[in-house]
Amino acid sequence: MSLVVVGSVAYDGIETPHGRVERTLGGAATYIALAASYFTPVNVVAVVGEDFEEADYDLLAGRGIGLDGLERAPGKTFYWSGVYSHDMNERTTLRTDLNVFAGFDPKIPPGYRAMPYLMLGNIQPELQRSVRAQMNGVRLIGGDTMNYWISDYREELLRTIAEWNFLLINDSEARQLSGVYNLRKAAAAILDMGPDTLVIKRGEHGAMLFRRDSHFMAPGYLLEDVFDPTGAGDCFAGGFTGYLAERGLRLGGGPVDRRELARAVIYGSVMGSFCCERFGVDRFRTLTREEIDRRFAEFREFTEF
Amino acid sequence: MSLVVVGSVAYDGIETPHGRVERTLGGAATYIALAASYFTPVNVVAVVGEDFEEADYDLLAGRGIGLDGLERAPGKTFYWSGVYSHDMNERTTLRTDLNVFAGFDPKIPPGYRAMPYLMLGNIQPELQRSVRAQMNGVRLIGGDTMNYWISDYREELLRTIAEWNFLLINDSEARQLSGVYNLRKAAAAILDMGPDTLVIKRGEHGAMLFRRDSHFMAPGYLLEDVFDPTGAGDCFAGGFTGYLAERGLRLGGGPVDRRELARAVIYGSVMGSFCCERFGVDRFRTLTREEIDRRFAEFREFTEF
Repeated sequence: MSLVVVGSVAYDGIETPHGRVERTLGGAATYIALAASYFTPVNVVAVVGEDFEEADYDLLAGRGIGLDGLERAPGKTFYWSGVYSHDMNERTTLRTDLNVFAGFDPKIPPGYRAMPYLMLGNIQPELQRSVRAQMNGVRLIGGDTMNYWISDYREELLRTIAEWNFLLINDSEARQLSGVYNLRKAAAAILDMGPDTLVIKRGEHGAMLFRRDSHFMAPGYLLEDVFDPTGAGDCFAGGFTGYLAERGLRLGGGPVDRRELARAVIYGSVMGSFCCERFGVDRFRTLTREEIDRRFAEFREFTEF
Repeated sequence: MSLVVVGSVAYDGIETPHGRVERTLGGAATYIALAASYFTPVNVVAVVGEDFEEADYDLLAGRGIGLDGLERAPGKTFYWSGVYSHDMNERTTLRTDLNVFAGFDPKIPPGYRAMPYLMLGNIQPELQRSVRAQMNGVRLIGGDTMNYWISDYREELLRTIAEWNFLLINDSEARQLSGVYNLRKAAAAILDMGPDTLVIKRGEHGAMLFRRDSHFMAPGYLLEDVFDPTGAGDCFAGGFTGYLAERGLRLGGGPVDRRELARAVIYGSVMGSFCCERFGVDRFRTLTREEIDRRFAEFREFTEF
């Protein structure tokens, strides 16, 4: 079933212990859409500048991603650059040039408004809410956020996520949002804010999914080499949401198939792991669904007892 | 099948955000033996001082733990005290009084020498080796170590673990021992040092087991309240080794049942999680095998997909 992804499309400058790249396609919506495109039809709503390159349109279009909602505005594309620590557990932002992203006001093309699945990348909570309002007949809606919105836009954020089926954040964000350190208690507090489902990403330590009556835990995939973790969390979101859309699953109103939800978490983890194997989005130039399913089976192999 | 546990028996002073206790039974051999006693007959080889209390003998004996190898020496019992950070991810040692433990020279009682399972707590590597030499017909041997032995007694340690079936350490120790940050590569390097199996404990993030041809990953159990993490790693070791002994499993020479090994990791995780629910060894005053098996089933519930 069709998925609409809203968020940033950007150029990134990345330095990791394995190398350096000056300018490569990035942004949350890019990673989410690329990862989800292996599971379901995907459409992106985002803004780029006049410098956005043909080859990058082609990469997205080549994966079948709908680009009617990719607005081209006068100016330059959002640019971010950062450098990772030796163990890759920390990264320092070197530059953030919002450029055309500063004026991003997402407009959902009429043809997308009735689509059933909506994934909101990390943008200003009021914008996420305005997107929600433009959609009709949405079956499942979820999104990401970050520390800045949690601390400085708390009221807007709470209004926004109250309308979501799932919230997908990392462990420190979950602690910040709930004000509770223990993740089990933090999850309970966040579910009280409205979402039916909370997914907590923990990077190399895996991911957890919480609902009122159950939870699921997945370990992280053990890569031999992490080339570049940029976008891994967004690829998790893309795999997770993409699988839900592929299977036509709901999260709110009535019972859910817990095993299917768990599989969505594993597909999220699989997509995040592939993302780290090359710089930027490079792994998606060659990745196949067959490789994805093979790694899914591997997950089963090293977690079953 | 009978298990011999060698290591420290101590008194601990512990402070966590949940409270404080001046002097309570502790030590690696204590925790390992208590945890393993739910699975298999256990015998302890350790040294205590004249201040060792009747009630603590009784607690161990009450769990059916053999104490013929618990030497009573003139002087005081090993005393350690420490304080945990607010998030419990760090602890600061306040005091370490080795006392009678400084002269510990483990002597295996004749009746224990033919026992098939041997678990060596974290003590000087040469002492671990001398224990190994006193045993005959041992079917499975494994042990723990720490940063101090890895850095300052490397040669002795390498000679020692070369004779073991499994090494059980935490992630930072695995990185230190191998000189490699990536845990998959670190594990491969450590298996080259001799052990058939490497178990890496990651605290709240779970545990991993590596063999040449496979690995297994378990997430950590999500407790609502961690009262005191002291001894959790040793309880993991006790659950892991205890289950192997209960099932009569081998690790070296020939194929192993990978599912059984994975279950041993889960039982280790289960025992570690119970340990954290009360101060010191208190949880073991009431814990039942039924509760253990219920938590094991819970692990299956929240990891299956």
